[in-house]
Amino acid sequence: MPPLDLDKIAAELESLEETIIARLIDRAQFRRNATAYTPGQSGFAGESVLSLFALRLKFQEEMDACFGRFMVPEERPFNRDLPSPKRTVTLEDDCLKLTDFNRVNLSAGILESYLDLVPQICRPGDDAQYGSSVEHDVYALQAISRRIHYGAMYVAESKYRSDPDAVRAAVASGDARVLVRLIVRPEVERRILLRVAEKAAGLQASAKANIRHTIRPEIIRDYYARHIIPLTKEGEILYLQNRGPSNRHVD
Amino acid sequence: MPPLDLDKIAAELESLEETIIARLIDRAQFRRNATAYTPGQSGFAGESVLSLFALRLKFQEEMDACFGRFMVPEERPFNRDLPSPKRTVTLEDDCLKLTDFNRVNLSAGILESYLDLVPQICRPGDDAQYGSSVEHDVYALQAISRRIHYGAMYVAESKYRSDPDAVRAAVASGDARVLVRLIVRPEVERRILLRVAEKAAGLQASAKANIRHTIRPEIIRDYYARHIIPLTKEGEILYLQNRGPSNRHVD
Repeated sequence: MPPLDLDKIAAELESLEETIIARLIDRAQFRRNATAYTPGQSGFAGESVLSLFALRLKFQEEMDACFGRFMVPEERPFNRDLPSPKRTVTLEDDCLKLTDFNRVNLSAGILESYLDLVPQICRPGDDAQYGSSVEHDVYALQAISRRIHYGAMYVAESKYRSDPDAVRAAVASGDARVLVRLIVRPEVERRILLRVAEKAAGLQASAKANIRHTIRPEIIRDYYARHIIPLTKEGEILYLQNRGPSNRHVD
Repeated sequence: MPPLDLDKIAAELESLEETIIARLIDRAQFRRNATAYTPGQSGFAGESVLSLFALRLKFQEEMDACFGRFMVPEERPFNRDLPSPKRTVTLEDDCLKLTDFNRVNLSAGILESYLDLVPQICRPGDDAQYGSSVEHDVYALQAISRRIHYGAMYVAESKYRSDPDAVRAAVASGDARVLVRLIVRPEVERRILLRVAEKAAGLQASAKANIRHTIRPEIIRDYYARHIIPLTKEGEILYLQNRGPSNRHVD
């Protein structure tokens, strides 16, 4: 993503909105299917602990890890102890100053907020489509996670570069509120929320209600307001607090 | 999917249109990236034959097989020799009369048509985003495959039931053209093509051209006209030619 250009960062974040909304709509075609989230109810032989959802997320991330997904800064995993990449990945210099990308890992908060969202976007009940439900859960989660981590890391680095002294002083003060005041941009947040609600309506305009279950645009807008934007800011603070003086070496 | 209700089948097929279009748009955010499709260029240690794309499709289907995906009639795999499901899947009676779902497997034709489509929807060149490109390829392929196999099997079974004698006579004639004449519905096809073009335009209406690469709606409409609809009809014929007198037993 070099050079670190705020317009390009904003464009990438904006482009991820369609993907997130489309993934949520895909999930909403199935019922809540609470069984798929119940520990020990996966139906997998010999698996007495994890839910089908947790198993799917684990299998997916193990596969993705083989393909090198988590070499990319904004792709932060939900699981630990994943296999090493099986392929050589050539990455551009990402311009970030982090010795360990997982210093900025908001996955736990993302997961919790997403599981709260599912009953809001899906019709209640059980349609036995557990496999499809958790498949779409994982794709939605990955899109949300990419947006949050991308925003956190790159926006924070670009804010640092625009005024290094102010950011360093705010970090040194040890008061997170000082840092928050420095990075908050209420006008940008308002614009994002308006745009997300508009897109959520637009992307569902062609869907016939008796054929495709739709999600009220306010639900997605509120999810951005209550979770995606706050988690991104939390990540920005983590980034700035953990920003190192020198670049990590890419092996 | 019982009871076998043509309106419900049509609704399901229509609902899959948004998913296919969204997946294609996701893929189109990346360049063509020919290297990702070149045999032996996967970058995987010890892998000298498969392309990164072929590897991703294989890994994905191996995972999906563990979760029981291919127990579902319309989920036909692109690979062979996949692992057995690790979970118990309870399926509704699908009302289909096939002893082996893979008698109706159009995967080879789907794969070929999709690989021809990629250069039409993606900008030329290479952005090194091979992992993301093939990830989205696989999701797009799975959505297209589901649509074709679902249409082929359920539409054919419902046509059989609407006039079993005519279908049996056409099959017995040994002339595929007689069967084709029986199942073709030009008016329905025209409606699908119009709708797909409208949806492809609508789903991209909110995307800003400098932020999100868009696909000309005609490209997706033509892909439906030249591949999705003909492959579905080919599958209907295969279904009717292989339709068994009795139901397969679900283990």
